[in-house]
Amino acid sequence: MELTLLIHCTDQPGIISSVTHFVQSKGGNIVYLDQHVDKEAGVFFMRLTSEFEHALSLADFKKAFDTNLAKQYEMSWDIHMDGQKPKMALFVSKYNHCLYDLLSRYNSGELLVDIPFILSNHPDLEYIADQFQIPYYHVPVSKDTKKKAERKQLDLLEEHGVDFIVLARYMQIISPEVIDVFPQKIINIHHSFLPAFAGAKPYHAAFERGVKIIGATSHYVTAELDAGPIIEQDVTTVSHSHSIKDFIAKGRDLEKIVLSRAVQLHVERKTIVYNNKTVIFS
Amino acid sequence: MELTLLIHCTDQPGIISSVTHFVQSKGGNIVYLDQHVDKEAGVFFMRLTSEFEHALSLADFKKAFDTNLAKQYEMSWDIHMDGQKPKMALFVSKYNHCLYDLLSRYNSGELLVDIPFILSNHPDLEYIADQFQIPYYHVPVSKDTKKKAERKQLDLLEEHGVDFIVLARYMQIISPEVIDVFPQKIINIHHSFLPAFAGAKPYHAAFERGVKIIGATSHYVTAELDAGPIIEQDVTTVSHSHSIKDFIAKGRDLEKIVLSRAVQLHVERKTIVYNNKTVIFS
Amino acid sequence: MELTLLIHCTDQPGIISSVTHFVQSKGGNIVYLDQHVDKEAGVFFMRLTSEFEHALSLADFKKAFDTNLAKQYEMSWDIHMDGQKPKMALFVSKYNHCLYDLLSRYNSGELLVDIPFILSNHPDLEYIADQFQIPYYHVPVSKDTKKKAERKQLDLLEEHGVDFIVLARYMQIISPEVIDVFPQKIINIHHSFLPAFAGAKPYHAAFERGVKIIGATSHYVTAELDAGPIIEQDVTTVSHSHSIKDFIAKGRDLEKIVLSRAVQLHVERKTIVYNNKTVIFS
Amino acid sequence: MELTLLIHCTDQPGIISSVTHFVQSKGGNIVYLDQHVDKEAGVFFMRLTSEFEHALSLADFKKAFDTNLAKQYEMSWDIHMDGQKPKMALFVSKYNHCLYDLLSRYNSGELLVDIPFILSNHPDLEYIADQFQIPYYHVPVSKDTKKKAERKQLDLLEEHGVDFIVLARYMQIISPEVIDVFPQKIINIHHSFLPAFAGAKPYHAAFERGVKIIGATSHYVTAELDAGPIIEQDVTTVSHSHSIKDFIAKGRDLEKIVLSRAVQLHVERKTIVYNNKTVIFS
Repeated sequence: MELTLLIHCTDQPGIISSVTHFVQSKGGNIVYLDQHVDKEAGVFFMRLTSEFEHALSLADFKKAFDTNLAKQYEMSWDIHMDGQKPKMALFVSKYNHCLYDLLSRYNSGELLVDIPFILSNHPDLEYIADQFQIPYYHVPVSKDTKKKAERKQLDLLEEHGVDFIVLARYMQIISPEVIDVFPQKIINIHHSFLPAFAGAKPYHAAFERGVKIIGATSHYVTAELDAGPIIEQDVTTVSHSHSIKDFIAKGRDLEKIVLSRAVQLHVERKTIVYNNKTVIFS
Repeated sequence: MELTLLIHCTDQPGIISSVTHFVQSKGGNIVYLDQHVDKEAGVFFMRLTSEFEHALSLADFKKAFDTNLAKQYEMSWDIHMDGQKPKMALFVSKYNHCLYDLLSRYNSGELLVDIPFILSNHPDLEYIADQFQIPYYHVPVSKDTKKKAERKQLDLLEEHGVDFIVLARYMQIISPEVIDVFPQKIINIHHSFLPAFAGAKPYHAAFERGVKIIGATSHYVTAELDAGPIIEQDVTTVSHSHSIKDFIAKGRDLEKIVLSRAVQLHVERKTIVYNNKTVIFS
Repeated sequence: MELTLLIHCTDQPGIISSVTHFVQSKGGNIVYLDQHVDKEAGVFFMRLTSEFEHALSLADFKKAFDTNLAKQYEMSWDIHMDGQKPKMALFVSKYNHCLYDLLSRYNSGELLVDIPFILSNHPDLEYIADQFQIPYYHVPVSKDTKKKAERKQLDLLEEHGVDFIVLARYMQIISPEVIDVFPQKIINIHHSFLPAFAGAKPYHAAFERGVKIIGATSHYVTAELDAGPIIEQDVTTVSHSHSIKDFIAKGRDLEKIVLSRAVQLHVERKTIVYNNKTVIFS
Repeated sequence: MELTLLIHCTDQPGIISSVTHFVQSKGGNIVYLDQHVDKEAGVFFMRLTSEFEHALSLADFKKAFDTNLAKQYEMSWDIHMDGQKPKMALFVSKYNHCLYDLLSRYNSGELLVDIPFILSNHPDLEYIADQFQIPYYHVPVSKDTKKKAERKQLDLLEEHGVDFIVLARYMQIISPEVIDVFPQKIINIHHSFLPAFAGAKPYHAAFERGVKIIGATSHYVTAELDAGPIIEQDVTTVSHSHSIKDFIAKGRDLEKIVLSRAVQLHVERKTIVYNNKTVIFS
């Protein structure tokens, strides 16, 4: 049995020693520990994975951890048992490359999630949902129906017990009402190396500016558009010889890999968010 | 003997055929030809290098080219004879990494330029100019003396017959008066992947935003700050574990390599500027 | 109507001028031209795309080209009309990531080919063929049945008029008998940056050696294992903290992108092979 | 005052807890801790940095650490006090790019070492040593004088109390006699992405093979040529359009950056060698 702890709190002496001592006292063998101190912010972060030979009551462990450590150091913390599959909802519009990439990883057991449904404001990609035998909900969004559509979305998310949402090129802005229910639990892919070219049509803007590098950025969604904590970024070179169409084609490969990496990091509990930034553990 | 032609004009049928025919008729053997059509802008670009077994009057060649081709196609064009070393002035402030990188390339014959002088608003780097036995002019710049300092700069540039200027981390804004005298002939290095983080303190801004990639951009200087035609960009990965100090250290390596590459491209006549963008020939 | 010419021959003066003149005389407007001279080998290469306003007999054009130019310069050449979809056979074993990546590009119209069938020495991936409604042939290969299996493969390839074969992690060595029928028409993906770690288990070898970078290489298959002309390579960083399992996971993303890029280049007629190397046009 | 511990030993439960407890008991505040377990080899590695408000006897600390921890866990370990500058000898031949890069970092205080001397088998680069006012020893090496030259090298190294050697494109093979005196203390730069193209003329071999990526590798020197533990690698893309001369020019930038990074990692005590591989701490 394996447990993973994620901790952050005000930096102070003795935390590592106390936590490792606690884990060991419960019979745990630490197989991974990584820590980070943001000196500017004065915050301590740690991720620790521990094996236990004998079965353990997760509830008891959590209670003891809370009483003995978390309260003392005023920690924000989370403990996950190995093998728990989170429930991931996929939101898409008309582009299929990110959807295909995530579904093929899911299908081959590379991405350990359950996918209760795919939701789209268009009917176009239902055939892919069918290929992978996943329910597909077509929830159109127009200016007039946006409120109603969001109500429908929230109902579906609640009904299926969704843990987090992936916007796999979902071309709609998510309202604060939805974000509030899923704080740091909505992952978006933006097709530029943010903060450059936030907003609509980033490839057109990049072409116009004559950049020699284009990128893609996956981030947690916050109320401010394309300004949430960055999880993962990557770039590729372009030149004057590439048209906007070429930018879009090269960008597709970036987008799908960057989004899938970010989703994988989230699923493996390797991210902590603070100050609108992320700590990404290796 | 070797000639390099750089041409751009409105795209129209028959240009390549006409130009290659012309070069051949003058006894030239084409050893390099690259062309590009910007379909959006409707502009044709070509770089062509040709060997001539027998000596050739450059003036006659230019005149014939102008009469027979350039006028007909309304070309912007330039012809360079192999082996002409351009005169490059270096402007620096206090950082030495870009300066060292350019001077070591110059010293080893990798960068084929003459360097009549190094100019700085600070005295700090004079010792490096001494190491490489290059004249060093200390021209302080303050709010009150800026006009006078620019006059001094322009005098020095004219006096030494400078062809182009490299701002090797020169921490002063260049006035339109100077830019006008050296249009598309001032190369700057900015320590971010433009257009992200233009202006002052880009590493601090990048750290604040929590990006996972930092970059450097070399561009021709125009009146608008950090908005000129991009010649070269490169990036490197960073993580939450890097402090601003680490960003600056990693950035130094990017800056010097990106600037030196851009200078090399300019020296080898591989750049054409149009619409505030560059065509970079291979 | 659009034609693309691929030419290579001994380097000699006047080729570009002659070819561009010929194309123009037939009413063509050159929209793309790239050429390369391998000075060591003394070989000239050219790719040229030309638009024709009026319909044209491809047969007549080819005949005229052959008579007027190809014979004179002793060219190896090829002319393709825009819009012809080549027939691509996919060979796989048990890994699905490259297969999924190619099929999703095919399905979304990004990869302009016909796929008459998928062939495998294992039954495992038939479900994916079914997802995409493509015929799947299970042709087991053992030491004893290898000859018979190859006979079956060649029959299928001939029967379906296959133009080229993609080995999307097909874990069998292709015999010279098959290679001879498809010279420079079998594309493989090898999971290392060749020539490092040719042969079996490259990730294990890379881990053992302690490299800090792993790669993937797509190449045309020749009789010598993993030694054919390289079409495309890419790499990603690794560290001591990555296990062999991590290498394999990171490698999957490399493999699929590198293979798909190579296939795209082949389909777009952007590759010329010579001296066991490739010229890749932009 | 700041101490950095480097530890490796057989993996066993309780190490982190014991070490962090020990450091804390001595009044240390842990500001950095990174650990790694090589599960295949069953080895545990840790790097830990701790601040101490009050002065501390390093000797006492080491003794206590040895008695209380190192013996119990059978650790290989090392403790460094912040601010100790190691003595680095530079060996060069005729290429100057790596030398210039290291010296400019040294001169600007980026690389915290002392450089007692530069040694070369050629007189060519003495002018650079003069530029930076560092003693230069010309020790020619021929088949006949190799033994004598090595004796001279060892004398100089001992005389100046050299801690480690950097081969900044030193084109001679180091004998086991010298390696034995400086185990894991000689850093070389090889101009290929090892293990590809070990030995002489790697750029020629890379060109011949038609690779699309070239690289550079910095490693600790061992008795087997180009086969020592890799510290750092990097790559850059090439194409058919690059000549061997272009490979060499592009490679220079790689070589100098990769070597300087490796030297920096060594100087900052961020490397541990085991099983002919390295653990590189962040």
